[in-house]
Amino acid sequence: MKLSKEEAESILSSLNFRHEMGTIIAVLQDSETKEVLMVGNMNKEAVMNTLTTGLVHFWSLSRKSLWLKGETSGNLQLLQDFKIDCDGDAILVLVKSQGPVCHTGNRTCFYRDSSSLNLTSSLS
Amino acid sequence: MKLSKEEAESILSSLNFRHEMGTIIAVLQDSETKEVLMVGNMNKEAVMNTLTTGLVHFWSLSRKSLWLKGETSGNLQLLQDFKIDCDGDAILVLVKSQGPVCHTGNRTCFYRDSSSLNLTSSLS
Repeated sequence: MKLSKEEAESILSSLNFRHEMGTIIAVLQDSETKEVLMVGNMNKEAVMNTLTTGLVHFWSLSRKSLWLKGETSGNLQLLQDFKIDCDGDAILVLVKSQGPVCHTGNRTCFYRDSSSLNLTSSLS
Repeated sequence: MKLSKEEAESILSSLNFRHEMGTIIAVLQDSETKEVLMVGNMNKEAVMNTLTTGLVHFWSLSRKSLWLKGETSGNLQLLQDFKIDCDGDAILVLVKSQGPVCHTGNRTCFYRDSSSLNLTSSLS
């Protein structure tokens, strides 16, 4: 999915960039498997680039720079659809992955689950 | 799912509360439908309470207070499982909802999709 600049600007105007360094929270979800892949921050430029190029961009809080996801690894994340939350400070980005999202090589950054965290007495 | 205080402390020690006001980002996902329900922040106390009571708690950045999700609406969110991301600053919380998550009455806070945002020329 790609939007025109005008459409993207309309979306931008409905967002509340209230998080760190003028960002919203972006949650990446695999559009087919519904697996949550990662969480990052997007500033206005990252949202604009994501919507108009169809490739997920983030704002890196640590590096303080715009970041095309997969620029070095080649694992681009293709925008399929998106949803905005009730107060406009978070966006759910539905993607088709061209490769693992996580720098560890895992398909998702959320690969550490309760069974891998050495919990012995968890009760259901 | 409920953890012991010792287990919860072990989880806490693997988290990096680097976001606003000493928080991590928490993504709520329906454990059955895989629908992403909402995004919020959790400080150490909110994570500890969530893990040891089995009921989702957040730290409200705007109200600057601990918040049992559903305390007033009755729509408690029951912890089924959780996953931690690679750098420990986000947690994926799998829940069973006792009612709509969103204050608008919608099942999910992400109820505004591209078709409801008056986009006319979006291309797939």
